[in-house]
Amino acid sequence: MHPLVKEFNDYRSKTNELILSKDNLVIKRFFNLDGNAYASGALPVKTKELLGLVASMVLRCDDCIKYHMEKCKEQNTTTEEMYEVFAIANLVGGSIVIPHTRRAAEYWEALQAG
Amino acid sequence: MHPLVKEFNDYRSKTNELILSKDNLVIKRFFNLDGNAYASGALPVKTKELLGLVASMVLRCDDCIKYHMEKCKEQNTTTEEMYEVFAIANLVGGSIVIPHTRRAAEYWEALQAG
Amino acid sequence: MHPLVKEFNDYRSKTNELILSKDNLVIKRFFNLDGNAYASGALPVKTKELLGLVASMVLRCDDCIKYHMEKCKEQNTTTEEMYEVFAIANLVGGSIVIPHTRRAAEYWEALQAG
Amino acid sequence: MHPLVKEFNDYRSKTNELILSKDNLVIKRFFNLDGNAYASGALPVKTKELLGLVASMVLRCDDCIKYHMEKCKEQNTTTEEMYEVFAIANLVGGSIVIPHTRRAAEYWEALQAG
Amino acid sequence: MHPLVKEFNDYRSKTNELILSKDNLVIKRFFNLDGNAYASGALPVKTKELLGLVASMVLRCDDCIKYHMEKCKEQNTTTEEMYEVFAIANLVGGSIVIPHTRRAAEYWEALQAG
Amino acid sequence: MHPLVKEFNDYRSKTNELILSKDNLVIKRFFNLDGNAYASGALPVKTKELLGLVASMVLRCDDCIKYHMEKCKEQNTTTEEMYEVFAIANLVGGSIVIPHTRRAAEYWEALQAG
Repeated sequence: MHPLVKEFNDYRSKTNELILSKDNLVIKRFFNLDGNAYASGALPVKTKELLGLVASMVLRCDDCIKYHMEKCKEQNTTTEEMYEVFAIANLVGGSIVIPHTRRAAEYWEALQAG
Repeated sequence: MHPLVKEFNDYRSKTNELILSKDNLVIKRFFNLDGNAYASGALPVKTKELLGLVASMVLRCDDCIKYHMEKCKEQNTTTEEMYEVFAIANLVGGSIVIPHTRRAAEYWEALQAG
Repeated sequence: MHPLVKEFNDYRSKTNELILSKDNLVIKRFFNLDGNAYASGALPVKTKELLGLVASMVLRCDDCIKYHMEKCKEQNTTTEEMYEVFAIANLVGGSIVIPHTRRAAEYWEALQAG
Repeated sequence: MHPLVKEFNDYRSKTNELILSKDNLVIKRFFNLDGNAYASGALPVKTKELLGLVASMVLRCDDCIKYHMEKCKEQNTTTEEMYEVFAIANLVGGSIVIPHTRRAAEYWEALQAG
Repeated sequence: MHPLVKEFNDYRSKTNELILSKDNLVIKRFFNLDGNAYASGALPVKTKELLGLVASMVLRCDDCIKYHMEKCKEQNTTTEEMYEVFAIANLVGGSIVIPHTRRAAEYWEALQAG
Repeated sequence: MHPLVKEFNDYRSKTNELILSKDNLVIKRFFNLDGNAYASGALPVKTKELLGLVASMVLRCDDCIKYHMEKCKEQNTTTEEMYEVFAIANLVGGSIVIPHTRRAAEYWEALQAG
């Protein structure tokens, strides 16, 4: 696993555990529900993950972008498809999305490295 | 055409014409480019319009939501698919997306009316 | 009930029913969870509603503001307390919150009318 | 005065008075300070009003846009200059700024009417 | 003082001093006013700091979150109360608040360390 | 060149190259158009860069702020002018802009170092 990918996943796991250890029921249910929203339904998982990614990009949440890029990779999203998502995110969200696109492009390469 | 749909499209056409009549080249190119981003490519038009819709929902832009819903309708998006997009938008963007979902749900019904 | 309050609640009920009639499970659970977050816990209901209000103000969601103001009124929030919440929302969110504060101030008067 | 301009200014005055009548000191000072930020300094008033306008556009606050457009008009901003501000706002903020640009374009015409 | 807490406070002090050394009167007054908004009034300081915190969370400002968490700690906020604020912030602001909640949870532990 | 400035520019160049190497036509055109929006027109380049800066500040994009500050420096913006832009950004965008102002102030000093 590329160091960028490992670092993100380790921090994410560690702090998620910390949060869940506090037993706030609303937060637990919200975390669960967040997972359910991307399950296969009328739309396939891949489309839903692309939706999660573009939403994360226009809201400019780097960690959310990384998370959904990993899921998109698992769904065999190609680089050409990925950049079409980037294009829509940049058009809808404007040039303030560019710095997040830079970091996303770098992370996408890291994900290809395995 | 349902009155809600007609009112939106009339205002949109009238004010787009006003803007373009001023001949600002950057704005003209930006409007063109915005159209290009949703053309068929590695991803099909329907997926791209769903992406444009979810991005508009989490950014809470009612007019952008209406525009992309019309395009989604033209791409034969079903109501079940539409509500799965709503679900993701609500999860990613939070309860502040709910009022926009209400108006979107109402507009979706108006679009079904033809 | 003041016409402003009635109009808001009627539209809210009608469109919530429309959304829930489509039986999207994620949306249903999200709507439920949203209610649970404001239930009495370590923090009292009133404090939680003030939190929901200030969050709605800085995110500039007029309908969310109206909803939480009604709940704050039910919890016997005074006008002086209300304006202290407005002050924090304006400081944190900046002058773009002012137009939403104007509409909130008007709605607060409408809520006093019963 | 054009009806669009009169309606905006009347509502703004009425609700500002309501807010200030409640004597919240932080809000009063914030409203004052907001005025001071646009006074002539190292940068001229016109430039500062253009800055206030572009900030309001990318944050998508229609009432803030109207307010600053009036001030820009008083500073003899031309239509060509105005549309260059619109162009920057659209590029930085993305296509979600377009609906606000439509309403701004309409209001700018109303302001020319006197 | 935990290294995370020390690092944040040192950078904050150093750069605040730099800003104030430039003698921009509007900025100075704004910084002062920002402090006043959280002073005891009709609402107690603790409630106001919780309001500042939830506003910072939904606006996703990590440094603002850290600042208000320190103030909440000084007001004897419990971990259970803190997580109820997190829950509301996540519901209102959506899953894009989760990464900020992760960093907030980590910082809250650091604040307990003294 | 100050290390802060060099680090930003190196990362920006490297990742821009990566993005452009993928030959997504919409992204290429968007990047070009973004440059055109700041070219001399009815408004001078300096005013446009100040507009780009204030828009970046209220949208809280640190990398966009750095980029426009460099351009403002090339246009001989003084420190007094810069802080008047900061003041407007803070008033319009609120106290959540303060942490970005801190980093901007630090970067402005780095830019003076040559």
